[in-house]
Amino acid sequence: MRALRTVEWLADTPDSPVPGRVRLIDQTRLPGELVWLETADVDAIWKAIQTLQVRGAPAIGIAAAMGAAAAAQTADETDSAPVLAALHAAADYLATSRPTAVNLFWALARMRAVGETNRALPPRALKTRLVREAIAIRDEDAAMCRAIGRHGATLLHDGDTVLTHCNAGGLAAAEFGTALAPIYTAHAVGLRVSVIADETRPLLQGSRLTAWELRQAGIPVTVICDNMAAQVMHEGRVALVFVGADRIAANGDAANKIGTYGVAILAQAHGIPFYVLAPTSTIDPATPDGAAIPIEQRAVEEITHGFGRATAPDGVAVYAPAFDVTPARLIAGIVCEHGILCPPFAAAIAALKH
Amino acid sequence: MRALRTVEWLADTPDSPVPGRVRLIDQTRLPGELVWLETADVDAIWKAIQTLQVRGAPAIGIAAAMGAAAAAQTADETDSAPVLAALHAAADYLATSRPTAVNLFWALARMRAVGETNRALPPRALKTRLVREAIAIRDEDAAMCRAIGRHGATLLHDGDTVLTHCNAGGLAAAEFGTALAPIYTAHAVGLRVSVIADETRPLLQGSRLTAWELRQAGIPVTVICDNMAAQVMHEGRVALVFVGADRIAANGDAANKIGTYGVAILAQAHGIPFYVLAPTSTIDPATPDGAAIPIEQRAVEEITHGFGRATAPDGVAVYAPAFDVTPARLIAGIVCEHGILCPPFAAAIAALKH
Repeated sequence: MRALRTVEWLADTPDSPVPGRVRLIDQTRLPGELVWLETADVDAIWKAIQTLQVRGAPAIGIAAAMGAAAAAQTADETDSAPVLAALHAAADYLATSRPTAVNLFWALARMRAVGETNRALPPRALKTRLVREAIAIRDEDAAMCRAIGRHGATLLHDGDTVLTHCNAGGLAAAEFGTALAPIYTAHAVGLRVSVIADETRPLLQGSRLTAWELRQAGIPVTVICDNMAAQVMHEGRVALVFVGADRIAANGDAANKIGTYGVAILAQAHGIPFYVLAPTSTIDPATPDGAAIPIEQRAVEEITHGFGRATAPDGVAVYAPAFDVTPARLIAGIVCEHGILCPPFAAAIAALKH
Repeated sequence: MRALRTVEWLADTPDSPVPGRVRLIDQTRLPGELVWLETADVDAIWKAIQTLQVRGAPAIGIAAAMGAAAAAQTADETDSAPVLAALHAAADYLATSRPTAVNLFWALARMRAVGETNRALPPRALKTRLVREAIAIRDEDAAMCRAIGRHGATLLHDGDTVLTHCNAGGLAAAEFGTALAPIYTAHAVGLRVSVIADETRPLLQGSRLTAWELRQAGIPVTVICDNMAAQVMHEGRVALVFVGADRIAANGDAANKIGTYGVAILAQAHGIPFYVLAPTSTIDPATPDGAAIPIEQRAVEEITHGFGRATAPDGVAVYAPAFDVTPARLIAGIVCEHGILCPPFAAAIAALKH
């Protein structure tokens, strides 16, 4: 199975990564069309992040790192100073594209640090080093997702159907994603697995993105409205639930896309195990529990004008939490790149972080 | 508070109901515009039912009865035979507009029976009798909804917020509806009550219709996506859940719009009482339990192309149950026009039906 290449670096010359450009799937055109954006222009990459052409925390970090490297490669080669100046200017600028994206800041800081550490290199070698660092960020993400896939696949049996919510798949990362990684892994080794994808209102990442990427991979997927999850569970159609996470607290409480908490309650009511799949970087030991995770509100128009026309009365009140928190007691296991953490999560997380 | 007049008869002359015409709210134009359809043309009424300009079982029955009466009023007055012929022809035709709507058949059968019983009347008096019967069907529905409202309002306290799913409100009936009737009743006597309306995918009856009619009445309403119900319950924002029903089995299991069952599980998980509000005509003693209620599938396009554009990949598999069944164990009470039935429902229903 050919893995989805959501964000990658394309070199213009076969023997060197520099010069080159970023190539990414324009996710705003999905599921209608598969359109690639290829650019070395930092403005275009800023816009791609800002307008959700690329989305998902790991994918945003990779795109930003590659964008900073692309900006640096155009600098004057008289000295390393112009290369570093271009790097820092691009990083400052790209950091403004999605102000709340933690991976964005992390990836840009890593690029800056690599630039400073290697400032003694000749300018051309410094440019190459920066591009290699951006590619390394991508490759590390791909490897981490594959590790999650290997561990998570041990939970799957031939014929299993997994219900998932939102998109924590390859489109959110370099290749395999997190919640979908075990599905890809199991499929690659010949297990017959299928997926039920909640459409995931308001932005429909489930029906637009999860359904699209699984179909690209030839994995059977069925779309349902979010409010049908209880019924498909009742009918015995769901073996397990796999979801991603935006942040996991020290006690195992997990914040994820709005609706995840409800799915966890429904899974428990039907005796279906519910797993959270995320890299250890998602676990924040400084957050004691879910009550400490702030719940952002999203724009009202996503609900009232979601499908291209008004679906609610003008001026109606709307409550639009972006995330919810699934308490640790509803989670059967947390699948990370090191293995599967089991309850009690506080102890497992503390051990992992030491 | 002025009650919503979803379907009514408008007489052309002040002293007699005949001649006259049907007036109904065109629900396909909501929530954008409030447009009334006024017609005595049976084709227009057939089309109104078929295209969901009028929807909700009681409202469909009323519209069909009035449509049959309107058709009869145009008949030649030489004799009662042409009046009855026009009545039966219209009833035959109107019965084809929504083939699965039980209230439609019930209302048309009642109109035919009244026509036959009164065939000895002079033609003009027979026409008047038919129109009066259609108006009586409407008035009985309004009275029944008001009785449900009175009983259900005893469950409400000042400041309560009720979560509801779909639209079992005035737009589905003559005036007050079922699930929303206690809200209107409580509001009319000065209690401050508010509503959280699940948008109710795929057809969004909650955001389009429930939110619209409550705003018309000046009752605070907040729209949420279906997948936010668990979060608003967790935040303590919901005192009770009120929903309608399409059919209630002899043991109290209740079929209603897809998503209702999930809401019932979430309510139980948060200790929130969940009530079903429906007339006793909805209770079917011949259906022993929910397992005997068939679950229809809806059209795939309602999910993949909901509101004017594609939101899922072409050709993707979709599972689209129209209804689900909430088991009696999750229901705190069934509010009908005679009072509030309490568990065990099998005994309460058997007593009621005797």
